[in-house]
Amino acid sequence: MSNKIIVNDNESIRFNNKVDFCVGTGRLGLALTSEYLDELEFVQREIGFKYIRGHGLFTDDVAIYHEYEEDGVTKVEYNYTYVDRIFDKYIELGIRPFLELGFMPKAMASGTQTIFYWEGNTTPPKDYKLWTDMVVNLLKHLRARYGEEVLTWPIEVWNEPNLPGFWYKADMPEYFKLFKETFLAIKAYDERFQVGGPAICGVNDEEWIRSFLVFCKENNIKPDSVTRHHYTVEFPEYDGQYAYSKLEDAQMRFDNLQSSRDIIDSFEEFKNLPMHITEFNTSYTARGVIHDTNLNAAYIAQQLSRLGDMNESYSYWTFGDVFEEVGVPFTPFHGGFGLVAANCIPKPTFWTFAFYKKLKEVGDKCIYRDDDSIIIKGDKKYAGIVWNIDKDEFLKEFELGSDDKEYVLITKTVDEETCNPLKVWHDLGEPANPDKEEVKIIKDSAFPSIKTDVIKAADGKVDLSLKAGKNAVIYFELKEREFTPDRGYNYEKVLTFH
Amino acid sequence: MSNKIIVNDNESIRFNNKVDFCVGTGRLGLALTSEYLDELEFVQREIGFKYIRGHGLFTDDVAIYHEYEEDGVTKVEYNYTYVDRIFDKYIELGIRPFLELGFMPKAMASGTQTIFYWEGNTTPPKDYKLWTDMVVNLLKHLRARYGEEVLTWPIEVWNEPNLPGFWYKADMPEYFKLFKETFLAIKAYDERFQVGGPAICGVNDEEWIRSFLVFCKENNIKPDSVTRHHYTVEFPEYDGQYAYSKLEDAQMRFDNLQSSRDIIDSFEEFKNLPMHITEFNTSYTARGVIHDTNLNAAYIAQQLSRLGDMNESYSYWTFGDVFEEVGVPFTPFHGGFGLVAANCIPKPTFWTFAFYKKLKEVGDKCIYRDDDSIIIKGDKKYAGIVWNIDKDEFLKEFELGSDDKEYVLITKTVDEETCNPLKVWHDLGEPANPDKEEVKIIKDSAFPSIKTDVIKAADGKVDLSLKAGKNAVIYFELKEREFTPDRGYNYEKVLTFH
Amino acid sequence: MSNKIIVNDNESIRFNNKVDFCVGTGRLGLALTSEYLDELEFVQREIGFKYIRGHGLFTDDVAIYHEYEEDGVTKVEYNYTYVDRIFDKYIELGIRPFLELGFMPKAMASGTQTIFYWEGNTTPPKDYKLWTDMVVNLLKHLRARYGEEVLTWPIEVWNEPNLPGFWYKADMPEYFKLFKETFLAIKAYDERFQVGGPAICGVNDEEWIRSFLVFCKENNIKPDSVTRHHYTVEFPEYDGQYAYSKLEDAQMRFDNLQSSRDIIDSFEEFKNLPMHITEFNTSYTARGVIHDTNLNAAYIAQQLSRLGDMNESYSYWTFGDVFEEVGVPFTPFHGGFGLVAANCIPKPTFWTFAFYKKLKEVGDKCIYRDDDSIIIKGDKKYAGIVWNIDKDEFLKEFELGSDDKEYVLITKTVDEETCNPLKVWHDLGEPANPDKEEVKIIKDSAFPSIKTDVIKAADGKVDLSLKAGKNAVIYFELKEREFTPDRGYNYEKVLTFH
Amino acid sequence: MSNKIIVNDNESIRFNNKVDFCVGTGRLGLALTSEYLDELEFVQREIGFKYIRGHGLFTDDVAIYHEYEEDGVTKVEYNYTYVDRIFDKYIELGIRPFLELGFMPKAMASGTQTIFYWEGNTTPPKDYKLWTDMVVNLLKHLRARYGEEVLTWPIEVWNEPNLPGFWYKADMPEYFKLFKETFLAIKAYDERFQVGGPAICGVNDEEWIRSFLVFCKENNIKPDSVTRHHYTVEFPEYDGQYAYSKLEDAQMRFDNLQSSRDIIDSFEEFKNLPMHITEFNTSYTARGVIHDTNLNAAYIAQQLSRLGDMNESYSYWTFGDVFEEVGVPFTPFHGGFGLVAANCIPKPTFWTFAFYKKLKEVGDKCIYRDDDSIIIKGDKKYAGIVWNIDKDEFLKEFELGSDDKEYVLITKTVDEETCNPLKVWHDLGEPANPDKEEVKIIKDSAFPSIKTDVIKAADGKVDLSLKAGKNAVIYFELKEREFTPDRGYNYEKVLTFH
Repeated sequence: MSNKIIVNDNESIRFNNKVDFCVGTGRLGLALTSEYLDELEFVQREIGFKYIRGHGLFTDDVAIYHEYEEDGVTKVEYNYTYVDRIFDKYIELGIRPFLELGFMPKAMASGTQTIFYWEGNTTPPKDYKLWTDMVVNLLKHLRARYGEEVLTWPIEVWNEPNLPGFWYKADMPEYFKLFKETFLAIKAYDERFQVGGPAICGVNDEEWIRSFLVFCKENNIKPDSVTRHHYTVEFPEYDGQYAYSKLEDAQMRFDNLQSSRDIIDSFEEFKNLPMHITEFNTSYTARGVIHDTNLNAAYIAQQLSRLGDMNESYSYWTFGDVFEEVGVPFTPFHGGFGLVAANCIPKPTFWTFAFYKKLKEVGDKCIYRDDDSIIIKGDKKYAGIVWNIDKDEFLKEFELGSDDKEYVLITKTVDEETCNPLKVWHDLGEPANPDKEEVKIIKDSAFPSIKTDVIKAADGKVDLSLKAGKNAVIYFELKEREFTPDRGYNYEKVLTFH
Repeated sequence: MSNKIIVNDNESIRFNNKVDFCVGTGRLGLALTSEYLDELEFVQREIGFKYIRGHGLFTDDVAIYHEYEEDGVTKVEYNYTYVDRIFDKYIELGIRPFLELGFMPKAMASGTQTIFYWEGNTTPPKDYKLWTDMVVNLLKHLRARYGEEVLTWPIEVWNEPNLPGFWYKADMPEYFKLFKETFLAIKAYDERFQVGGPAICGVNDEEWIRSFLVFCKENNIKPDSVTRHHYTVEFPEYDGQYAYSKLEDAQMRFDNLQSSRDIIDSFEEFKNLPMHITEFNTSYTARGVIHDTNLNAAYIAQQLSRLGDMNESYSYWTFGDVFEEVGVPFTPFHGGFGLVAANCIPKPTFWTFAFYKKLKEVGDKCIYRDDDSIIIKGDKKYAGIVWNIDKDEFLKEFELGSDDKEYVLITKTVDEETCNPLKVWHDLGEPANPDKEEVKIIKDSAFPSIKTDVIKAADGKVDLSLKAGKNAVIYFELKEREFTPDRGYNYEKVLTFH
Repeated sequence: MSNKIIVNDNESIRFNNKVDFCVGTGRLGLALTSEYLDELEFVQREIGFKYIRGHGLFTDDVAIYHEYEEDGVTKVEYNYTYVDRIFDKYIELGIRPFLELGFMPKAMASGTQTIFYWEGNTTPPKDYKLWTDMVVNLLKHLRARYGEEVLTWPIEVWNEPNLPGFWYKADMPEYFKLFKETFLAIKAYDERFQVGGPAICGVNDEEWIRSFLVFCKENNIKPDSVTRHHYTVEFPEYDGQYAYSKLEDAQMRFDNLQSSRDIIDSFEEFKNLPMHITEFNTSYTARGVIHDTNLNAAYIAQQLSRLGDMNESYSYWTFGDVFEEVGVPFTPFHGGFGLVAANCIPKPTFWTFAFYKKLKEVGDKCIYRDDDSIIIKGDKKYAGIVWNIDKDEFLKEFELGSDDKEYVLITKTVDEETCNPLKVWHDLGEPANPDKEEVKIIKDSAFPSIKTDVIKAADGKVDLSLKAGKNAVIYFELKEREFTPDRGYNYEKVLTFH
Repeated sequence: MSNKIIVNDNESIRFNNKVDFCVGTGRLGLALTSEYLDELEFVQREIGFKYIRGHGLFTDDVAIYHEYEEDGVTKVEYNYTYVDRIFDKYIELGIRPFLELGFMPKAMASGTQTIFYWEGNTTPPKDYKLWTDMVVNLLKHLRARYGEEVLTWPIEVWNEPNLPGFWYKADMPEYFKLFKETFLAIKAYDERFQVGGPAICGVNDEEWIRSFLVFCKENNIKPDSVTRHHYTVEFPEYDGQYAYSKLEDAQMRFDNLQSSRDIIDSFEEFKNLPMHITEFNTSYTARGVIHDTNLNAAYIAQQLSRLGDMNESYSYWTFGDVFEEVGVPFTPFHGGFGLVAANCIPKPTFWTFAFYKKLKEVGDKCIYRDDDSIIIKGDKKYAGIVWNIDKDEFLKEFELGSDDKEYVLITKTVDEETCNPLKVWHDLGEPANPDKEEVKIIKDSAFPSIKTDVIKAADGKVDLSLKAGKNAVIYFELKEREFTPDRGYNYEKVLTFH
């Protein structure tokens, strides 16, 4: 009795692969640092995201907003030195800003509440005119520097205003005011800019989205998108600096996203309005130890197979571990959000993204999808991903329709045995400050194991069987093989004649 | 019943590790090319040889020697444009020339016999004065450009004069004349230069070495070294462009080397004169298909454990596959001599060298050696290599003396399963001109599998057991582990709490 | 009494600026070398050509064509290892091959005549079928590797068949046969390929072009372009290795080009057929000492202002000094064809090209041109070039129409005083093999002197005056200036308060 | 009547050239940023300093010191993530930290006073034991990571405690306590560390140095060096963001340094104790507009010719313009301290340092020095620098003793005409955020003009005359010329035959 799955080439499953649309980042000021840029360059070379979204555009380390006294009058001046330096680099690296407008410059703030180690001020502006002037001036400056493409950079107003830490008292009417003023000011400058919100997270999602849309409707505003976040763990247990969390059921979280989608579509005016997940990950803390594990890679593999079903896009939080919300990390494997750890060491989840990016290059014709696999049909090839979320090793067997050709099967395997930098670091003694040799060992251990095999199709079908170890993520490609040996070269003889 | 090998820390086995002393190269003119330099840079970064030796210094593509007519008289002029360009790069890459003097510039040759696709003239000079002037002038030029270190660059007179292809009629007296004239001219310029010969290969070794030394003795010449080559296959069977060879018994070849050593030592005047193997490999042909295999890597692992016993040094022929003696290769895996294939793809044998280089860094205290392993004791660590020449998988078990410490075991495995670019290329269809994506897959598959483990010593000893698959070469390091977890970080909990 | 030239913004002078269409190269095999690639990368970064054309595609160092015996039969095999390596690099550097088909592989040749130090065989094929098979197979291979863009790479049949050194006996009917066979075979494969000829040079231009077109007409062939060369010196006087030539009158040479153009247009069938200058320079020898001078830069500046008048394109022979037609250069300044000398030292003529490329970026609206200047009107700016061919220093004064704005004048000056690497090398003693420090001094001296000034327009015009020293080439840009000083920054006070 | 200066080769003038001993930097935390590292790499490549000194090692952005509560007890933990990242880069760039110990981590501070935009806490520790533990632990960590060389890295206790902004109330007894506790703790750990102070600046120099040495004497402490700063402008006039200052008389400032030297030597115990200028520049403000001028370059040229007379070393404040003490700069030319401006644009003063570094490479035999020139005699060459501080152009004429050889004179000129990026930026309109093209123009204009000439010595002497424009700094080298033209190459004919 076999579990072989019969896959039909003519199947066409909805699969909106937006793996490379956007990625999260530590606060923008960190984009000045070289470790950050090294990591981003590594990520862009191997994966290549289109947009990048982070907090802190208007926080004082980016230093845009300044007031000074002259003749007894307070005047405003803008400093674009750092924002230009940051965005110049982004563009050099082939990535564009997804503009999250926030937080509040101290000099413009109405209060003193701050969030994070780096003290982002999270209070409303003392004067909304100062705020909208700053926003619009920035857009003008960016357009002068980067040209008309700036009109296409997505804009999001603030971050998680439904949490009191991020927005003073989580004051809903005040946020709606902020949204409205910002929206109108930008559209007055140029209505082609794309402005969305409310960028909420986790708590009272439904109430906020519904209220936001009601507010928009009443104010005759049509936002260009609705944005929210998506994390998938229970409230963590803390120990010292670290957070241990239980994963939630994936389906339950997908249902939650669908309910947001449904709310939007329940408004005639906003039906089919794009919904962007502007942050997602498993754990929502920057010391969420799960982030560095192979389990995380496998769990995210499932997420990427489904998130496009109800969302226009989804942005992993974050590309790298240069991130200071809860302070400077003490060790390289501290449960940071990043796809890569310090010294550009790719974590297992990095490969989940790299694999989905490769799927995208093969094409968008999805012919099979279940809870632990997905298959795409491309030109003269199949490509797919198999993952194993915390189960014992299993065998995944497919029968694919095919001409009677010869194929090469290429597999790239990431699992606890073959590509587990966290374990290597642990075995080395969990060094807080690994030396060059230790870094090299960890890094060299962090790449997928690559294997090839030759498989022949017969009787109009080809059998494919993949063994998925615990928490494995396996990318495979099955390509038609054109065998063109050189004159006199006989591989069997090479192996046996000696 | 265990096969456990008890290793005593106090053992001290003669082990003259000269893995990085010298490496061979395709003709020097090829050092102008970028693929050659890329491969050399890769080799230097990962292994780092001290010297490089190749043919063709005086062949016309390097273009040193020129004659012209003026007022009815033939005059000589030297052109150092290319030799400087080549040696500048070598020095940039941290490697120095091992100066093999040859072949003959066409304008200086007494005959028309050439060797190789690139037509190196292998006849004596029409006038020995022209030859010695050219040699000495070159040394003067090099000294002006590179300083006094040039005095330490080893010099070897010609290549394999005992083969008629390399030296017209394999004329022994003529070679001895060449040696004498060259030796005396160089020493007359500066006696500190190190000049050796006769660079023979394979046939009539004993007769040539003995005769050479008799000649030297009679002529009151004391060469600075005796040089010869060392290949370890039977005469090949050819098929199309390719050569299939059977490996010879390793011990038989070691004995042959020892007999050369014994001949030298039988001369009172030359006792202990350094003997350099200025070329060695398994197959001696540039289409020797064995070169690209895991078997080659394992066989060479044994060679490197023993070649220092009777030789001052030994130079693998060659570092890379940019090599044109029998023409331009049609495919990337064509049985070239190189440690790396085109596009800087490391072949399995590359790692044998990288591993012996790591051994050298750990130290020179050899505490164990047998036919398929070697162990070094360093500071707070053991390092060793285990290889398997064409046997079924076996388990190698050691019991090492030790304090009751905790160790991390790091292994790097190269075998037919884990690091076999030849197979991957074959499975891809043996593409003659792989595209970028194929090159990437092959290259990514060509790195060792790295694993770590934690092992505790007890009762004053630590057990180590390594599984060696067919044609495996495994590097291991066993280092004292200092475990310093950060506050609240619990690796077991990281894995289990979710 | 002023010589001020009044320039009218509304003027529109025909100026077909094809400065960056194509550039020449030493034989293709040299493209394997790293110095060549360094120079090409430098040239592409600063100038950026679209196509590159050189000899030797089928010469044996590229090693495409091979014959072997099997079962008593001679068979053919192709080797694309090197041609792929070369073209991969070209494409990496943003340049495409302009495919000159030649010379003859030795194994395919009907005779033994060769040309150059590197011995390109210049005889017809022993069998035209072998030739056309080789050509078409190469095109198929290139298309498989580089895609459909290969269809747009220009093709030229052979080089300078009107010279007996380049084509055995300069046999016209035999060349026409070669052209016809090649043309028909390529078009039979895919008629979209662009095939031209006869690539003639210097002698009997008129007769060859006319006869070529008569032949085409009679054979019902419509070539996609007519190609010829253009050199502008008298027969040189030789001294040792070097060639000293007198420049010819520029107008006389332009007239000669126009006569070719007129011949083409005199055929009804070929009227307006594109004419490509597939080689041009002053001296046609690779030891033409004039190439390294500032005079050459100024003379070529005039050429670039006019060559587009009667030609579709024109390709400077060559981009760099890696070039071996008459052997390996003995010194870095040996009168090579290159825009750059060894070690990527730009020669004065390099800047002539860089300046015309900048003109092209400003736009194609030419508002003024005379024998020593040209002016383009762009968006909010003027740009132009002034040159001085061997005259005493003169002042060039323009009055440009303008709004009453403030302008910044940017000038980049290359002349005998400010940017003359040849003189610096000479003053250093003409070192044949300069050391690193000498190379750095020469290179640092080889960049234009950059100056700026602020000029105000008044009464609807702005005055511009440029002093052109002997053999100067001066690029200028006159841009509207937006002065935005920071709060409290006063440049005058910066200079005076101390 | 000539002003020719007769220079005697046998002269030997005291000239302690420490141009490359140490350089200043913005706060250490900025060393994480990529612009900072790019600038440092540029500086190291062209100049190459041995040490780098800056503030903020213990400030919270470097994040070394942390307290946490456990079981009701406050505990301490150290985080070396960032300090390692910074120092790793320093060492990669060939520079070592000159360890300035300061400022106070907020959690360890006794008060809330801070200095600068980046809020360095400048109050004494709440507990000196916490401070000395932190210092000694850091030294231990650095030694474990970087080896025994750490023992040679100079240490300085705090910065400018004689200014109340830098040290709460400029409390002298409290500083002496800090010094003593720190000194004793470090020496107790390892007495080979080199510990100095009091790092004072400007005000009451004499009183502080004398009192410091009295204190040391009374406490039986022998510091390894005495440190102070050296700025040479009057109190500035401010306008908006910018500071305009008048230069002080150079001799007056040299005398002031000599008086410090004399105080030290007046103590028997401290006679000849090294005195380090751990900061010097003209203006002491980070908006000192003079820094960007050619005048600054010329003034510093004089400083570098004399500062070694009374000091062991002197460290220019600072290498680059990444510096935030008074906030983020609004424009690239804002009077920052740096030798280089943003985007690695070298300011004129950069070249003063580069030129003195070249002098050092030539040798230390000074044969002439006056108020606007210095000359060194090296092997077969002379090298020197001529500067002009704010005077009209003058001619400097020397007669140097010499064999009757031929010389090449190489000059590198930096003056207001030839190398003045500030003017170019001004002419471009003083753009706050220059685009790529503007940056390129400014940068290309910021390199010295290089000229060569051939000069013949006669009658045992050679005449040298150099024209120094206003605020020029001119480096010259006069090297024996070996003229080796190639066969047939005649430079005169190259220029004239055409």
